[in-house]
Amino acid sequence: MKLFSFWRSLATYRVRIALNLKGLKPEVVNIDLMKGDQRQPQFKAVNPQMVIPALIDGDGPVLFESLAIIEYLDEVHPHPPLLPTEPRARAFVRGIAQIVAADSHPLLVPRVRNYLTGELKLDQAGVLKWTRHWVAEALNAIEAHLANDGMTGKFCCGEQPSIGDICLASQAAGAGFFELDLKPYPTFSRVVDACMQIEAFAAAHPLKQPGAPVSHQ
Amino acid sequence: MKLFSFWRSLATYRVRIALNLKGLKPEVVNIDLMKGDQRQPQFKAVNPQMVIPALIDGDGPVLFESLAIIEYLDEVHPHPPLLPTEPRARAFVRGIAQIVAADSHPLLVPRVRNYLTGELKLDQAGVLKWTRHWVAEALNAIEAHLANDGMTGKFCCGEQPSIGDICLASQAAGAGFFELDLKPYPTFSRVVDACMQIEAFAAAHPLKQPGAPVSHQ
Repeated sequence: MKLFSFWRSLATYRVRIALNLKGLKPEVVNIDLMKGDQRQPQFKAVNPQMVIPALIDGDGPVLFESLAIIEYLDEVHPHPPLLPTEPRARAFVRGIAQIVAADSHPLLVPRVRNYLTGELKLDQAGVLKWTRHWVAEALNAIEAHLANDGMTGKFCCGEQPSIGDICLASQAAGAGFFELDLKPYPTFSRVVDACMQIEAFAAAHPLKQPGAPVSHQ
Repeated sequence: MKLFSFWRSLATYRVRIALNLKGLKPEVVNIDLMKGDQRQPQFKAVNPQMVIPALIDGDGPVLFESLAIIEYLDEVHPHPPLLPTEPRARAFVRGIAQIVAADSHPLLVPRVRNYLTGELKLDQAGVLKWTRHWVAEALNAIEAHLANDGMTGKFCCGEQPSIGDICLASQAAGAGFFELDLKPYPTFSRVVDACMQIEAFAAAHPLKQPGAPVSHQ
């Protein structure tokens, strides 16, 4: 098993957590997004979208998209499960996961920030305002669901970490990169704190990966 | 069962296709995104994120996020299945679905277009260029996966429509709204044509819904 990864990639962070929870240790190939490794022919041959994460498992075509990879890992290596068993609970953690992975994170990725600065000539303050806006919009929605839907326990849904918690951890790391105040989101913060007590989450954190700065500012 | 819907919402289009394929006929509540119904208190009480689709099924909290709702419908009403059975095939259709629902569509939604025009003072030509850019980026990735990964048959994966095809149909509708030329994407176009032969897809199309213009330009 081979994971294409970069320390800062929040989507790859999600897959790293899932791999750690399952006790899987793939070979890690570093794709330096800042140097443009993702646009080199050898990686384009692996993933035509030129984004990470990408996972190779055996002979099949590459696995792509963080949530699809995590559900695959959960189906092929069912223990410990990354989704609850009851359909409504599964929908809840998948919904939380998608607020992060669909509504928030895709607005912050390098290719979008590059369009904002290159095509739209936005300055760094404008880009920071943009990123904080979309991180906060998602956090407002997440906090409301966690606090009000009656699903949340120690973790996003009940007492076991799930794909929802994996995504909350990546949202918290993103909020850290962009220095967002998390005080307005107490349920979110409590659940993320519980996640970060788990070695599988903590060891997968962007700032613990090879190439990461000692302190990201 | 109650679906909060609007003719133009591509995410709700996805859920409408799934409901049609399953033969389910929920009550439909119109949330006029152009008039701002989604920000009214009565809808905010249903979905704090103030976005559609939202589905109420029985007494539980609201179901949210299109792909989470579709997987829920597939688990509770398993026939006909909306995912293949083999894990790698499931990962493929989920990956295709997420290129649409995570990497492309969230960059085109009204709240993002409003930020571009309101906050960034982008004119309509600039917004159109932005939307076409992100629709095309996703189409490039989708076409490469469909043409090269060895999974694609009449539909996205094999001979039965799946959650991947549902998302391809919404991507095609979005490309139509923004008048993108689909010639560079022959595999994508062929699969979408096959989908649109199915009444469940055709009847769910945005331009077939109450309130839609006769011809969208």
